[in-house]
Parts: sequence; structure tokens; C-alpha cells
Amino acid sequence: MIEEVPGGVIAPKGFVAGSAHCGLKSNNKYDIGIITSETPCKAAALFTTNQIVAAPITYSQKIIKSGNIHAIVVNSGNANACTGKRGYKDAETMAHLTAKQLNTTPDKVLVASTGIIGRPLPMKKITAGICKVADSLGNNLTHATNIAKTIMTTDLVPKHIAVKIPIATKEVTIGAIAKGSGMISPKMATMICIITTDAEISLNTLRSCLKDSVEESFNQITVDGHMSTNDMVAILANGMAGNKNITFSTKKELALFQKALDHVTQLMAAAIVKDGEGATKFIQIEVHEAKSTRDAKKIARSIAESPLVKTAIHGEDPNWGRIVSAAGYAGIRLDESRIKLSINKIVIFRNGLPVTPAPGNLNNEMKKNEILIQLSLGLGKKRTTMWTCDLSKEYITINADYHT
Amino acid sequence: MIEEVPGGVIAPKGFVAGSAHCGLKSNNKYDIGIITSETPCKAAALFTTNQIVAAPITYSQKIIKSGNIHAIVVNSGNANACTGKRGYKDAETMAHLTAKQLNTTPDKVLVASTGIIGRPLPMKKITAGICKVADSLGNNLTHATNIAKTIMTTDLVPKHIAVKIPIATKEVTIGAIAKGSGMISPKMATMICIITTDAEISLNTLRSCLKDSVEESFNQITVDGHMSTNDMVAILANGMAGNKNITFSTKKELALFQKALDHVTQLMAAAIVKDGEGATKFIQIEVHEAKSTRDAKKIARSIAESPLVKTAIHGEDPNWGRIVSAAGYAGIRLDESRIKLSINKIVIFRNGLPVTPAPGNLNNEMKKNEILIQLSLGLGKKRTTMWTCDLSKEYITINADYHT
Repeated sequence: MIEEVPGGVIAPKGFVAGSAHCGLKSNNKYDIGIITSETPCKAAALFTTNQIVAAPITYSQKIIKSGNIHAIVVNSGNANACTGKRGYKDAETMAHLTAKQLNTTPDKVLVASTGIIGRPLPMKKITAGICKVADSLGNNLTHATNIAKTIMTTDLVPKHIAVKIPIATKEVTIGAIAKGSGMISPKMATMICIITTDAEISLNTLRSCLKDSVEESFNQITVDGHMSTNDMVAILANGMAGNKNITFSTKKELALFQKALDHVTQLMAAAIVKDGEGATKFIQIEVHEAKSTRDAKKIARSIAESPLVKTAIHGEDPNWGRIVSAAGYAGIRLDESRIKLSINKIVIFRNGLPVTPAPGNLNNEMKKNEILIQLSLGLGKKRTTMWTCDLSKEYITINADYHT
Repeated sequence: MIEEVPGGVIAPKGFVAGSAHCGLKSNNKYDIGIITSETPCKAAALFTTNQIVAAPITYSQKIIKSGNIHAIVVNSGNANACTGKRGYKDAETMAHLTAKQLNTTPDKVLVASTGIIGRPLPMKKITAGICKVADSLGNNLTHATNIAKTIMTTDLVPKHIAVKIPIATKEVTIGAIAKGSGMISPKMATMICIITTDAEISLNTLRSCLKDSVEESFNQITVDGHMSTNDMVAILANGMAGNKNITFSTKKELALFQKALDHVTQLMAAAIVKDGEGATKFIQIEVHEAKSTRDAKKIARSIAESPLVKTAIHGEDPNWGRIVSAAGYAGIRLDESRIKLSINKIVIFRNGLPVTPAPGNLNNEMKKNEILIQLSLGLGKKRTTMWTCDLSKEYITINADYHT
């Protein structure tokens, strides 16, 4: 039922995107972009829960309340965070400039920024950039990849996806772009992910779908446990698919839309982890048989954020002691004798004791690029899945050499 | 009033120590040792709060309740954790063997272990080792350094200290050994720290002094945020200094004893951080003007455990954005415009804005081995101090290459 299609955020009907280089990043890389729809959209967004909030987040939090958004302007290379009152004015100005170019109003333009913290935005460059972007709007596949490139910082690969689902007799498309790849431990939203859809959907339903989807995707990833000041996930729905309106009452259509949206957010979340700073391995952590989902999530996060677990996997070592002990300090009561742990489906710890001798094929499994850790607690019926990456010397290089 | 003296744990009157190599570590390194007193001691101990608890911890938790301890037997190279019922029996056997050699009872012998998780103890080697150690007991300075070496795992330097204080007309001595240097995020106690004193002190007072001291020393350090299964801090007081009994009523003497004990635990805690795996810099984090000490501690820990902060300091970069944003996700309400941040006493962020241009001598300060981060929240009067180290490629090497 869910079919992947090309085109990212411009795959849904009526969306266009544009990108330009205005001088925030070096080497002529795209650093400013706009995504807009032919008609205003119903929109929902989730933001960082960091107490230090970037100016564009404060601005966007204010205007998203109406649920009525026409465009998003986004820049990389400068986070516009810790920039005081001037920062807020600059975010407002970005919305004004964009609105003027698109013949809409500033209260319908979301603003997102990513990059270095604490530098004022060079507004002359931004202004010229927004004009250039407005002239370049379009919906070719190049526009799709360019807008994904526009939001990259230390990301190595652009991240975009689009999927198509049938809603009654109509085709509904959902597209997305996202960026990582350091300061990733979103807890409420990721760095930046912009989702577009041509679905006709009620605003409350859209808000609820986004919240549920983010809870099981971006909120379940971590690269380095450091939550950013600029995290934002936004979805724009312009209704141009002409489908029967999706609401809480259209259960079947809602379920399919939610499933497709989850597919998109989980794929973007996984793409961020796979492209995590210095990452060489993708790690999926499943916690089973917990008393509550909250317990399962706390334990999964404790394992996912342990540098000892992450370095062991980097070293291709099945060091289950580090995994079990990381579970043990998550603040949840455990019974060691009920725990079962497997790596890539091979059981290595059971009933409080290691499986000895260690299974022969385990060392080969550790050499793979994808590692699945499954921990069963034997305490209940709840479960969760979390995604992270290994910790390598490259992470240190990237972050010790990145100078302010 | 507090004078440092040589001798570590055997500096207090009536204590002896012994060490041997029994084959748990390679290269003939000491891996088993005993500390004992001429007479039984009043004793208190704190243990890991990890839910996965090593066998020696379970055993020691049981016998410490009496407050009456005569000796500690400790081994490195094997943590005796995740070893099931056999592990518990092995810990008991270590106490029995030691008691027999020392003419005391097993319920007066604490057991501590550190090293690899999940391997059964080779009890033949342990048995021979304990006999060898019993023959080598003494109180020369060599005994002092050897017992500190005995508990080392990835530590590069042995950690020991002793201090002398006057209690009325008598001299009271406190000595200690400690070990790190990975899986360090004690929260309730460190990996292993053994403290001896010849003070005459009531058991309740001793327990309270230890708890207070640990709260502001070992509980305030982190190397990698990974709490161990074997953390233990124990203090043995044999009363041989002959001082007037220290109780909650002897306020002046109690205050001095507490101060001396704090000196010892803070020095040992700092030594563990300085010798943290791969550490090249010692970082002191002070959080000021918090609403509560709990708030201050949460924020200090959030900064201390951020790999982005730790790598920035490793790269000698005054990346205040990472420090401020790490404070921002600690889960405590902040007001960005009241925050003041300084590094090595140089103010770099104030009233929600960076100090520009950046102070000229800041880059030189970042090259120093000791970095002091002071964050004032402007919200209250409470404060805390926390200690950590930087995150280097050497940490990855140590932990990716350490194979199970």
C-alpha cells in the first residue's frame, strides 16, 4: 500500500522548492532555501525542549498556532541561537522577506536555521539569498535534492524521501527532507525535518499524526545525547490530492496516513543516525518485556547513550557486560536472573549468566554494518525500539576540530 | 590543620596491607590484596546504585550492616559480576579464606572486585593469591603503593593519599586508595575507594561523615557517564589514635574530621578524573545561582556528560554554545537572558549574548591542562561543583580495542 516515489518534499502535488548559496557556508554550497505550496497549508510542528531556544524556533512556535502556513524558509551555516533580541528580529525579517517574494504574509512563513551558535545572521547575505531562491523555485528532481542539500551541516549525505498511498480513489503523497548529524538527541523533535503532503486532512488530526509519528521516530534516536537548540519537525498539508478529508472519524484512511507518515519519519530518523558524526555502524536497540513503555524507553536510551557500548560496537566486540550494566543504571528496577540479551539474534546472556562458550558466529555478526541488540527484561509486556550509531575516532576529530 | 603525610591506607595506626600477583592480570602485576587492622574497626560503606550488582557488592552490602569490619580483600582483573549463584559463593569463599588467614570471621571481611564482567573467578588462583598476600602484610611505604597498584585496571597511576589532623591532644590520620578509570559515573559511590582511619568515632557519625563526603566528591565526578556494577567506597576506623570519641555532639572535632575526610575523598575523586580513560584535561564545572542544589547538580552533570563539550575542550576550543545548550537540556527551567558563563575566569557569555569580540587571552587559557567552567544562572543562591575530563581519540582506542 505504501509505495516509495522520487521527489522528496516536492513530490506531493502543488509544492515547489528553491535553493541558493548566499555565503553562510563555504565552497558555494547551498545554504538558504524555501519550500512553498500553491495554496496555504494546514500545518503542525514540534520543537526542541531545550531551555536555550534559537530565535527562529521562538518565531515559528508563535506563528504555528494558527495552523495555517504557506512556506518555510530555512538556512544552514548559522543557527541564529544565543543571538538575543537582534536574533529574533532577524528571524522575523527572514519571514517578511520570504512573504514579500511569495506574495503571502509573514505570519504564514515558518523559519528554520541550523549551524553555528552565537553569531548574528549576516542579513545582507540572507536578503540577497532569499531573492535568489525565490527566482529558482521549481519542482524538478534537482529542486528536490538541492533543498535536501541546503539544510546539511556536517551531514555527509542529503536525506529525503517520498511515499504514495491510496486514500479511497485518490493518490496521497507525503515527502520529507531531514538533516543531522551532531547534537542529535532530539527527545521532542530532530534537528530539522520538513514534511509536505497533498493530503486533505483536518488540522487536529494532522497535529495528532505528527506527534505520534515523532514519538516513535525522531524521539527514539540519539547520536551523542546532546539536544540541540534548533530542533524542529514541521508538516505542511495543502489538500491538493483532493481526497476525502482525513479526520479522527475516517479510521481506515487515518490509519493508512499514519502508517505512511511513520514510514517517512522512521526512514528519516534512521538516515540521520546512519549519517551520525563519525558513524560506521547502525545500531537498533529493542527492549522487550518491560513493565511500561516509559521503562523500556529509559533503558533503551541508557544503552544507546553509553560511550562504552558505542565504542565496543565500533571495535566489533560483543561486550554484553557493558550493555547489561548500562540497562542497570537507567533507574528502573531489574531482575538480573530474568534478563535475556541477544545480538543479531544470537543469545549471549540468559538467566543472569553469559552463554558459554560464546556462540561461534558472533564475531562474524559483529563485523556487519547493522547491529541489532534485543534485551528482554522478563517483567511485563511493553516494548520499544531505539536507534543509534557507534562512537568512533572520527567523531572526536569532527568535534574537536570544529572551531568556533 | 590538615597535613598530608605519606603511607596511604597504612598511614593510620594499626593498619597493614599486602599484595600479590595470582594470575588475574598479565605481566606479573599485583591483582589481589588485603587491608586489615590490628583490631576490628567500625566501618561504613556505600555501593553502586546500578540494578546489575556484582557478587562482592551483594556480599559486602550484607555484612556491612553490623558496622564491624576487620579486613578488606580486593582483586582486580575480574569484576565477579553477572556470574550468578557461583559468583556469590566465590565472593563468600574469598571472605572465608581471608578470615582464616587473619584469624577473624568471614562476616568481618569486606570483598571488592574490579575488572572484566561475566567471567567466573579462577578460585584456585585466588586461593593461592590470598595465602601469598597474608604472608606479605606490612606497613612500609612499599606496602602502601603496592596496595594502590593492586586495584588498578586501566588506571595509569596509582591513587593514594593520607592526611593528619589534631583531635584535641591526639593525632588522627585518614588514608585512602582509589581506582578509576572507565565506567565512571558513580552517582552513589566510585569504582573502588578504601579509606582507613585510626580515629575513635561513633558508628553513626562515621556513616554520616562518609555519606556526606561521598555526595560532594565521588558522586560529583564522571568520566563517561557509565555507572559500574562494582562501585564501592568503604571506610574502616580502628580507634587506635586514642582520641576523644568523635560523635554528633563533639561539633568542633566532627567538623575537622569531616573536613579532612572531604579533603581525602575529593583528592581521590579528582585523581580518578585526571586519570580518566584517554583524559588530557581536567575540567571543573561550577554552577552558581541555581534555585536548588539539585538543579545545580543536574545542570553540571548535563554539561559534564556532553560529548560535544568534552570534545570541544579536547580541541582547545572555547565553544560556549555547546556548554550553554547542554545546560539547556538538563530539564531545569532557565532564563537565557540571566545566564553568565566564564571559562578560566574569562566571561564569554552574558545576558543571553556572547561577549564580542572574544577576549584575546581565551585561546591561551584553553591550552592549559585545567579548565574551569563557571555558569551562573541568576535564579537563586545554590551552587555545586562537578569534575570531569575531556573526550579524546585515546578513549575510543582504549574502549574499542578492549576485547571481551
